[in-house]
Amino acid sequence: MSSSKKRVVVLGGGFAGVYAARELERIAARSGDLEIVLVSKENYFTFQPMLPEVISGSIGLTDTVSPLRELLPRTEIHVREVESVDLERRVVTTSPGFRPHAHAIEYDHLVLALGCVTDFRGLPGLPEHAMPFKNLADALLLRSRVIRALEEAAIEDHDPALRRQLLTFVVAGGGFSGVEVAAELNDFVRRVGARYRGIDPAEIRVVLLHSQDRILPEVSEKLAAFATRILSSRGVEVRLNTRLAAATGEDAVLAGGERIPTRTLVSTVPSSPHPLIEALALPKAKNGRIVVDAELRVPGHENVWALGDCATVPAPSGGFAPPTAQHAIREAKTLARNVLAKERGTALAPFDFEGLGKMGSLGHRSAVAEIFGFNVSGFVAWWLSRTIYLMKLPGWGRRLKVATSWTLDLLLPPELIELRLGGSLGVTQEHFEPGQEIFHQGDLGDRMYIVLSGAADVLRHDEQGETRLATVGPGEYFGEMALLNRTTRGATVRCRLAMNALSLPKREFGVLAAHMPELRKSVDEVMTGRERANADLRIASRGRA
Amino acid sequence: MSSSKKRVVVLGGGFAGVYAARELERIAARSGDLEIVLVSKENYFTFQPMLPEVISGSIGLTDTVSPLRELLPRTEIHVREVESVDLERRVVTTSPGFRPHAHAIEYDHLVLALGCVTDFRGLPGLPEHAMPFKNLADALLLRSRVIRALEEAAIEDHDPALRRQLLTFVVAGGGFSGVEVAAELNDFVRRVGARYRGIDPAEIRVVLLHSQDRILPEVSEKLAAFATRILSSRGVEVRLNTRLAAATGEDAVLAGGERIPTRTLVSTVPSSPHPLIEALALPKAKNGRIVVDAELRVPGHENVWALGDCATVPAPSGGFAPPTAQHAIREAKTLARNVLAKERGTALAPFDFEGLGKMGSLGHRSAVAEIFGFNVSGFVAWWLSRTIYLMKLPGWGRRLKVATSWTLDLLLPPELIELRLGGSLGVTQEHFEPGQEIFHQGDLGDRMYIVLSGAADVLRHDEQGETRLATVGPGEYFGEMALLNRTTRGATVRCRLAMNALSLPKREFGVLAAHMPELRKSVDEVMTGRERANADLRIASRGRA
Repeated sequence: MSSSKKRVVVLGGGFAGVYAARELERIAARSGDLEIVLVSKENYFTFQPMLPEVISGSIGLTDTVSPLRELLPRTEIHVREVESVDLERRVVTTSPGFRPHAHAIEYDHLVLALGCVTDFRGLPGLPEHAMPFKNLADALLLRSRVIRALEEAAIEDHDPALRRQLLTFVVAGGGFSGVEVAAELNDFVRRVGARYRGIDPAEIRVVLLHSQDRILPEVSEKLAAFATRILSSRGVEVRLNTRLAAATGEDAVLAGGERIPTRTLVSTVPSSPHPLIEALALPKAKNGRIVVDAELRVPGHENVWALGDCATVPAPSGGFAPPTAQHAIREAKTLARNVLAKERGTALAPFDFEGLGKMGSLGHRSAVAEIFGFNVSGFVAWWLSRTIYLMKLPGWGRRLKVATSWTLDLLLPPELIELRLGGSLGVTQEHFEPGQEIFHQGDLGDRMYIVLSGAADVLRHDEQGETRLATVGPGEYFGEMALLNRTTRGATVRCRLAMNALSLPKREFGVLAAHMPELRKSVDEVMTGRERANADLRIASRGRA
Repeated sequence: MSSSKKRVVVLGGGFAGVYAARELERIAARSGDLEIVLVSKENYFTFQPMLPEVISGSIGLTDTVSPLRELLPRTEIHVREVESVDLERRVVTTSPGFRPHAHAIEYDHLVLALGCVTDFRGLPGLPEHAMPFKNLADALLLRSRVIRALEEAAIEDHDPALRRQLLTFVVAGGGFSGVEVAAELNDFVRRVGARYRGIDPAEIRVVLLHSQDRILPEVSEKLAAFATRILSSRGVEVRLNTRLAAATGEDAVLAGGERIPTRTLVSTVPSSPHPLIEALALPKAKNGRIVVDAELRVPGHENVWALGDCATVPAPSGGFAPPTAQHAIREAKTLARNVLAKERGTALAPFDFEGLGKMGSLGHRSAVAEIFGFNVSGFVAWWLSRTIYLMKLPGWGRRLKVATSWTLDLLLPPELIELRLGGSLGVTQEHFEPGQEIFHQGDLGDRMYIVLSGAADVLRHDEQGETRLATVGPGEYFGEMALLNRTTRGATVRCRLAMNALSLPKREFGVLAAHMPELRKSVDEVMTGRERANADLRIASRGRA
């Protein structure tokens, strides 16, 4: 870096980070005395408000996102995860790329714009089985999962319980984000469900769970009631005062114990600041966000700034600025101006934006909005929201593409392409609730399990009924026999106490067993022991009979 | 199934399978006496000729594919892999879906249309490090890898060798498929490379390898020479009489031993029939394809039919029909007519199509074509190919979308979105060539390795230079120390004899080590042993010094 230029490093590629870099570019281009670096884990900026439309495919898959290099031509962009920040030495370390070397970036000013993450910790089974809805990958994954579920339901004619799971879609969280996801998801499955010969549209359920007594706490009660009516009339079951407590691969488990069978569970709550923010020794509010003054500086750190959803920005009329795109964009303006003022020794200006309004789409040409204090709902609100989004999209190219997609969407049937994302699953963790079957005697063996906590019964079915062969607990394996002997499952395994287990797919297990003799040996020992136990048990149960 | 209807089961969702089902639908709708089932591993049909355009993004990411349910409204579609076929009992078994039960589908007629796969077996390192280019997932993956390489190159200012690898793109195979991939890839990287501040366009290399003395064996020498000129003038290095012999994560290794440093290697050769075809006891030609008569029946099996790239279809003028889309479509017509004729006891008709011509795109408004015996090249051929593709795309909706994308592409800059496909890599196999470093002392520890074959030296660098601590061979681990102790690599590991190794990423290793005490124990033992050996070695080398 040339010695005269001060370097500003912005962490985060959302509204807050990208608009901060944009404003800095605008000012720095004039003054020429700032060098800007942006670290983002994706190479694109996501226009979050339109993300739910990716589910229904009413816009192209990448229409909601813009390449960072197009938005920020004068910024040095690092597409990396941030590993750590050293506030003393003023260095940001980013994760390794193709070679396992970390990158160190020195800074004069640090701008924290890392936003929030959906945080499922502490909710049993949610980290493993619920899908967040924060970024493009989440939206594409959800879309593919929904299509996969429809494909499987269409040819599943033996197992009615599985059909019910496949055709039920559950969304947890009744704020703007959850409502928009439920609305788009509902529109999509009902529109495309009709195209499957094996699916009766009446079998499809879309359920929206909300923990309070009305959805959309962001807007007036009247608009929330309107939204509830619209959603219900389109077939969404809105369940109020209902909290999601746990999840398995087959159910959403509610706080009272009720289970909704489903293979597709999305949760937009709860959200908490980025893990890196947690690790930084900076003043934080109770909700974990970084404390900043009205000038967006972190108290006690003259060259550290924060904005957007990871900061508590004082609102001019008291309280704090809400975590919305319009606020992040205005905060970015204030911040950029203040960073430059700091360098020039001129006066800093406070953040003074009050918000223009709020709006949320209800899918299929309906929406709710509060703009300049007016309530608008239905088609007018929908038209207004589309117009505003289109104006707010960065760049004319992107606007043209979205407008074209919207037009084609009016003419053409929805896309039904299932993009396979994620490929092989590798080693995963799974959560099971009592009574749930992990697998059934006679099934094909597709994975083995290592119990981390809880317990499960190993059961054999024959003419005499069900016999318990063993109970497995923490540290024990099961399911490896069918993999090693290439047979179907010799027993049923059913969860006894809420259980977390690691699961290894057949391929990974095979590779490891073939090349790690110790693993193979230890599995063989367990098998021999269990077979002996089984033989004993069988004798015992015959003796009893 | 109703007893009166005969069931035709079609395996494969490419041109051959989809058009066979389409023709059967058309006839069956008239006659009402056939039930059609199609098994495809994707829920969409890929218009293969336009797949290379996905790389450059001149069409939308899903514009080349059409949902099967839209194309085949009267066919029962199973989105599954085929596990096995029982020719005796007339049953097709498909792979398990959400539940681990396999599906059995009985048939009266079986239509094999499983096509070809790119087959890297026997070429060291290719299965692990080369990318095939057969389907949409391959195209999206290649596109993302290219963008990833550009992103990393743009911020890599310490390691010139790594920059060279990142900015070199190698395509093996000079037939239509390889030439089109090289042309689109070249257009794309040169167009977008200019948008990266940290990349000098002169650093970018695109290399096309071909084993014979001219590319495009499918067309005349004159057209091939034209194509070579066009490609060269746009910056593609065309290397003739050059065969790809092996690959590592960092090089393409040529038959003579020369290595081209690259992180992006695509190979369109060699191709062989689907593995399921190999396993079936049916008459096969030398190249592994199924033998059929002119009526597309498999000799000796009155109800088994085959067409497309997995069959050797006799051409009316002698020889065999080439593996192209136009031939597959005509074969589908003959086959559907003959299946119905068989059921009705009427006469079967032979396949009698001779082909209309051939064409291949050279990217950026140039192509070569042989149509009705005429040679056409340059802009006219390009315009012709676009027109023909557009006409051949199934469905008006798809045509409208592609035409719109092409129009927008003329106006807008190319998309630069890096979609992360594949997520975590899990347990993978890697290939290393002698002299290659697996990792370097001081690197971050990101994975451990288990040697399957070959050998590598463990080396320590200090002021006195390089000391060999150990040599690891088949069945031995290395790299686990940095993972367990969370430190950087304590030594360099360099390949001594061409080596295959399994690699376990940090996360998977951590999970396994934490929950499988045997693994942990055995790793500990190896570590203790090696540390003792290291101590001895250090003493020995000090003694020598």
